[in-house]
Amino acid sequence: MSAFEKLLQHSEKVSHFSHLSAICGWDQAAMMPAGGAEARAAAMAELSVHIHNLKTQPQLGEWFNDADNETLNVEQQATLREMKRDWQQANVLPQALVEAQSLAGSRCEHAWRTQRTENDWAGFEKNWAEVVKLSQEEAQIRAEATGLSPYDAMLEIYEPGTSSASLDIVFDDVKGWLPDLIDQALEKQASESFIAPSGHYPAAQQKALGQDVMKLLQFDFNHGRLDESVHPFCGGVPSDVRITTRYRDDEFVQSLMGIVHETGHARYEQGLPKHLAGSAAGEARSMGIHESQSLFFEMQLGRSSAFIAQLASLCVHHFSGHDAALFAVDNLQKIYTRIKKDFIRVDADELTYPAHVILRYEIERDLINGVISHNDVPELWDTKMQQYLGLSTAGNFRDGCMQDIHWTDGAFGYFPSYTLGAMYAAQFMASMRDTVDVEAAVRRADLTPVFSWLQDNLWSKGSLLTTDELVKQATGEVLNARHFKAHLQQRYL
Amino acid sequence: MSAFEKLLQHSEKVSHFSHLSAICGWDQAAMMPAGGAEARAAAMAELSVHIHNLKTQPQLGEWFNDADNETLNVEQQATLREMKRDWQQANVLPQALVEAQSLAGSRCEHAWRTQRTENDWAGFEKNWAEVVKLSQEEAQIRAEATGLSPYDAMLEIYEPGTSSASLDIVFDDVKGWLPDLIDQALEKQASESFIAPSGHYPAAQQKALGQDVMKLLQFDFNHGRLDESVHPFCGGVPSDVRITTRYRDDEFVQSLMGIVHETGHARYEQGLPKHLAGSAAGEARSMGIHESQSLFFEMQLGRSSAFIAQLASLCVHHFSGHDAALFAVDNLQKIYTRIKKDFIRVDADELTYPAHVILRYEIERDLINGVISHNDVPELWDTKMQQYLGLSTAGNFRDGCMQDIHWTDGAFGYFPSYTLGAMYAAQFMASMRDTVDVEAAVRRADLTPVFSWLQDNLWSKGSLLTTDELVKQATGEVLNARHFKAHLQQRYL
Repeated sequence: MSAFEKLLQHSEKVSHFSHLSAICGWDQAAMMPAGGAEARAAAMAELSVHIHNLKTQPQLGEWFNDADNETLNVEQQATLREMKRDWQQANVLPQALVEAQSLAGSRCEHAWRTQRTENDWAGFEKNWAEVVKLSQEEAQIRAEATGLSPYDAMLEIYEPGTSSASLDIVFDDVKGWLPDLIDQALEKQASESFIAPSGHYPAAQQKALGQDVMKLLQFDFNHGRLDESVHPFCGGVPSDVRITTRYRDDEFVQSLMGIVHETGHARYEQGLPKHLAGSAAGEARSMGIHESQSLFFEMQLGRSSAFIAQLASLCVHHFSGHDAALFAVDNLQKIYTRIKKDFIRVDADELTYPAHVILRYEIERDLINGVISHNDVPELWDTKMQQYLGLSTAGNFRDGCMQDIHWTDGAFGYFPSYTLGAMYAAQFMASMRDTVDVEAAVRRADLTPVFSWLQDNLWSKGSLLTTDELVKQATGEVLNARHFKAHLQQRYL
Repeated sequence: MSAFEKLLQHSEKVSHFSHLSAICGWDQAAMMPAGGAEARAAAMAELSVHIHNLKTQPQLGEWFNDADNETLNVEQQATLREMKRDWQQANVLPQALVEAQSLAGSRCEHAWRTQRTENDWAGFEKNWAEVVKLSQEEAQIRAEATGLSPYDAMLEIYEPGTSSASLDIVFDDVKGWLPDLIDQALEKQASESFIAPSGHYPAAQQKALGQDVMKLLQFDFNHGRLDESVHPFCGGVPSDVRITTRYRDDEFVQSLMGIVHETGHARYEQGLPKHLAGSAAGEARSMGIHESQSLFFEMQLGRSSAFIAQLASLCVHHFSGHDAALFAVDNLQKIYTRIKKDFIRVDADELTYPAHVILRYEIERDLINGVISHNDVPELWDTKMQQYLGLSTAGNFRDGCMQDIHWTDGAFGYFPSYTLGAMYAAQFMASMRDTVDVEAAVRRADLTPVFSWLQDNLWSKGSLLTTDELVKQATGEVLNARHFKAHLQQRYL
């Protein structure tokens, strides 16, 4: 057996355990009663250790060395590259640091859950200092291993191939036009009126509606499910993708579009190359590309007027007895494109969202590169919020720098993925329109040409190409924020 | 760290992986879409291999030797005994035999699913010959390791401490009075009439009813769930017990009592000693004792007139609009105690069930001990069915020796557990009545004294005692079929 084949076999073994982890993780969030938590946490921790042990077995280094000298075809070379990337990520950090981070992160996140409610920056800062310090150490080690700057080495975890130099250029461009665009859109919407949902929308009806929307989006129910959890997510494995949502009795708007979003993630997973299942090359390309699919579904497709018309008729069908004016296409469209300058990222609309991300990106970049201290963050946050969205968070830590979970356990480098995803989504739509009449497909409720384009150009590629290669092959150019700007202008002006 | 402590730690590690296996196994039956089956099977197989590898690590032998010389208290001694039993079970068979059995069993079971429908004994017999041969080999190896007869060595897997010599005595006694009792009961029921369920019983209403019954039975929903699967079962882990049922739209009777049955299994699991979780001593004592709890719930409690009265009022509440006469206590009682001589074990009533089990026991005992050949089975089945239930299965393999799944993959030695469970359940009830007014507790819908007795005498003991010790401490005597006979006479004559 060649070294490459040994690596493949080993990778498949690891993926079997990851499968169990994904299903039990989904169960934890969607099914498990509270009393099962402690024993489950212990079982999951044991599994994590086992997976880590598999990924750090000493013979792998030799196999990678040997495989480098073996004759491999293009697909095998890409597979080897991705397996190696995965292996390097698992082996680059000393075990003591990983354990210290896990401990500090758990402590900080756990305390944050009450500290945030209490607006307790002083309490939070004590735990967070350690998390930041350990993340800086991590970034330093990763920097030395890769020859990148500390923050770029962190970006590499989530967005391989993306640098802060390129993000600076793209985000500076966005900062140049976004605040004006937001103001113009707000002015336009100021005079608009619409009917908001009121009354009672039973969860069972919302679920049936959601399943119909998933069918319209050609979600494969033979390879997946829809369930409920407090924090909606897309989990499971490509052959069995589990998406979740959360229903509120008093409205259906959020849950419905949440399902569209998660279905985007899900279809990417369902469309990954089956012949590469179990190897890193068969996995999703990056967090940003993953998010590009959920946002393609949610923002590019989901909030288009043709799609809103489909949603409207499904709503009428499932919520009979409600005011028909609520489900008028124009009314639903207004609800789904309403914008507002506000504090909270997770509640932000499509237009203000990039401001939230760019703010976080600039702060975490400088924090990880050691340019600023963790104690500078609240003031910087306030300054940038005023600059980008005209809101002050002075003294309001809860709705400012303490609002997100990401930083509490050291996930620095993740935030840019959200806006990269939004940009890629706009670029994919622009390119798709060259060959596909998207609106006509949506109007006849057969989106097959849309999904064929995504399947052929993106989903089927797994991680065989780098992000730049993938985007260039699909759209003729690498990331170009112009498409995102054009999309926003077209929708909001 | 002492050898005993090392063994405990290792046992806990194994139990973490078993936890994942239990949850993913439940998911497979209750949640997984069909398309997820292949990847799941591969992941579960990898996990099985891993668990087997852990259980057969060479250093365990040394640790067991060392632990034998360590000073242990009574509970630790019992824990060591059970860990050793588990270890011996995992190590006694050569890997080649285990693999051959797995292959032959899968092939036989898979083909059986169509062969049974087609009444194809000739086809079945070809695959089954290999399964029987390999099981005979297994029994021989187990016999040599334990000094028992081949069949007794198989019994040891499911019912440690039980011998065919003792089963022969108990079952011969049952055979002496059961056929007459069945005939007398049938004669009595011949003149009775009752109203059968008709109309429509929506699954959602049946589920709500089932959950109410589970509450009455003090199922801990903080440590468990109720879901649906094709074959109802009790799975999960003690901190998170998953029971399932199957709803039919046209009746509620089977599912409702099925839930009572599985709740018995579940409460045993939920009541196991928490301080021993993760070691073999903290697990259920045996299959027979497990079944004694489900049958205590289903037969001793569930079919008593006091409990039927509780079910009746819950049915009236959940199925409003149906004919009230159906839910009259006397009518429900007749439905739930109706007996019939019939071919199929899984559909059999309480009174005829032991005949089905004894028939299987006698055949599998002689088959595994090499007294008969697998080709003798159809004729023997026919003879015994005529003898015990007055029915002929000549030429009817489908409803005869091909009806059960157990033998298709070599689970010889399991069948006696069902009737042992029924007998233990009757004995526990008789003993409980000495100190607990069971009927009064059920009538006031607070079964706490019943469950306290079970908790104190059975559930909290895990596997600390042998079955004989457990039963003797709880009831003052070892297994005594007299209580079962008295119970059946009291109910059916």
